[in-house]
Amino acid sequence: MKWIETVPNFSEGRRKEVVDAIVAQAKAYDHVWILDESLDYDHNRSVVTMVGEPESVLKALFDMTKKASELIDLRVHRGEHPRMGATDVIPLIPLRNVTVEECVTHAATLGKRIAEELEIPVYLYEKSATRDERKDLSNIRQGQFEGFAAKIQKPEWCPDFGRREIHPSAGACAVGVREFLIAFNINLRTQDLEIANKIAKAIRNISGGFRYVKALGMELKEKQMVQVSINMTNYKRSTLFRVYEMVKLEAERYAVAIDSSEIVGLTPLQALIDVASFYLRLDGLTPENVLEMKMLEILMKDADGQKTS
Amino acid sequence: MKWIETVPNFSEGRRKEVVDAIVAQAKAYDHVWILDESLDYDHNRSVVTMVGEPESVLKALFDMTKKASELIDLRVHRGEHPRMGATDVIPLIPLRNVTVEECVTHAATLGKRIAEELEIPVYLYEKSATRDERKDLSNIRQGQFEGFAAKIQKPEWCPDFGRREIHPSAGACAVGVREFLIAFNINLRTQDLEIANKIAKAIRNISGGFRYVKALGMELKEKQMVQVSINMTNYKRSTLFRVYEMVKLEAERYAVAIDSSEIVGLTPLQALIDVASFYLRLDGLTPENVLEMKMLEILMKDADGQKTS
Repeated sequence: MKWIETVPNFSEGRRKEVVDAIVAQAKAYDHVWILDESLDYDHNRSVVTMVGEPESVLKALFDMTKKASELIDLRVHRGEHPRMGATDVIPLIPLRNVTVEECVTHAATLGKRIAEELEIPVYLYEKSATRDERKDLSNIRQGQFEGFAAKIQKPEWCPDFGRREIHPSAGACAVGVREFLIAFNINLRTQDLEIANKIAKAIRNISGGFRYVKALGMELKEKQMVQVSINMTNYKRSTLFRVYEMVKLEAERYAVAIDSSEIVGLTPLQALIDVASFYLRLDGLTPENVLEMKMLEILMKDADGQKTS
Repeated sequence: MKWIETVPNFSEGRRKEVVDAIVAQAKAYDHVWILDESLDYDHNRSVVTMVGEPESVLKALFDMTKKASELIDLRVHRGEHPRMGATDVIPLIPLRNVTVEECVTHAATLGKRIAEELEIPVYLYEKSATRDERKDLSNIRQGQFEGFAAKIQKPEWCPDFGRREIHPSAGACAVGVREFLIAFNINLRTQDLEIANKIAKAIRNISGGFRYVKALGMELKEKQMVQVSINMTNYKRSTLFRVYEMVKLEAERYAVAIDSSEIVGLTPLQALIDVASFYLRLDGLTPENVLEMKMLEILMKDADGQKTS
């Protein structure tokens, strides 16, 4: 079975009934499972985490985008988080038996359908980007909904799909493919923020470190420590264990020990298999060797048999 | 949701239709999932791996034992593996949200029911054992079916449940609680079997090593290496990473490197979480942080709603 994850962001974080109505669209589908919904009042934004079979997920995302365009009006939307559309961004993440290339195709299919049927212009970003300057979502979103009517007229901001005209109430939408992001923090036994900053700088892509690592130094006042706060944007290429070992080495340089580390939120099983395989020199350990995955496979087959579209 | 695993062994490894009929008993139940069935012709024995909610698993095991007692006749059974009953042994393994103590209670409940309703005497073994000499299953099974009519008359071999009389065709049955067993092999870059044997001796319980470790040295002729072949009988107490690090240290003593290691068959997710947590000093990583486990939880809830007894 093929699985992808998607984490669509909607510009509504206050009216729960609106978010419920959007999420209900996905619940109607076969092979789409909603892992999480979170509403942020200050951002006035909601984030839905879903996993499932690509075809069903794409259909669900289209229906959610349609419903959001009916219920959310950006002209009256206020919130702290930058946004350009009712459905602001739709990332697709390959999870299992799916390649990045397949997801890029899916993103294009979905984007085209949103543009054609809902008249919402769509920009492809990250691994789906058609131009370098569209890889970074914040570049696309700059100017936000209010500035987009003008921005979309600029030749370099012609949308990837749809006419050069924003949807009057639903704005524009970004669709793209990215890897699963792991939030990985490493706490250091020092209160010297400078050290955390120096280590962050040593490991992050932008300063010459690991390609798929973003990192910042942070103070943990309560713990009287500092933290190297890390976003692992591709755990398959820049791995947890290499990043950890590099932080440890750099910390030793300042005679500082690692106190502990944490994974905030979710990690794919494969990232843990990679860690165990590295340290134990395990040959050929796969998710098939994990008891719980055997159960998951069985239940997914059951679900196949029992659900109907 | 509470989960246990069970791996009942039946004395039939040749007539597939008999094993199918036994397994069919379990398939009728809610919340019981069959992960694997394997038949061994030479041993004339089958092993079924099942996971599920304790109550349903117990009912399924009783029905399977009943069916096995109807279809298997030990008086005409021949096979290389020692055996004393049609259903030879039923191990219960706590998996999730279930304590060993609860499983010990379940084993006693099941054993009592088998003895009372099927007239098969039952011995409790390993963590369920009522006497030290019954901890080891091979002690109980000694003498096998053919010798059991006499053995059961000895005061020290009075069964834990049932009369002192074996079932004429189905013999006797052992029920007990044990931990999940991980088969973990470590390959050494040497052809000197002596070194593998010395390391096996250093780490195994019987010679003074880790309490829940059994180990042997083995030749890997094709690979031109030797292997420390390890059974981890309680991965929670004697952990993969401690055993690995000790093997590595001992191998260094002989100037030998670890080539690789392997997990044969299944491992519970928790064992991998423990490894990752040790090496990355991860604080508080649990199965709840693993994406696939989120899906499993959802599907188990779905299964709850959809299956009926």
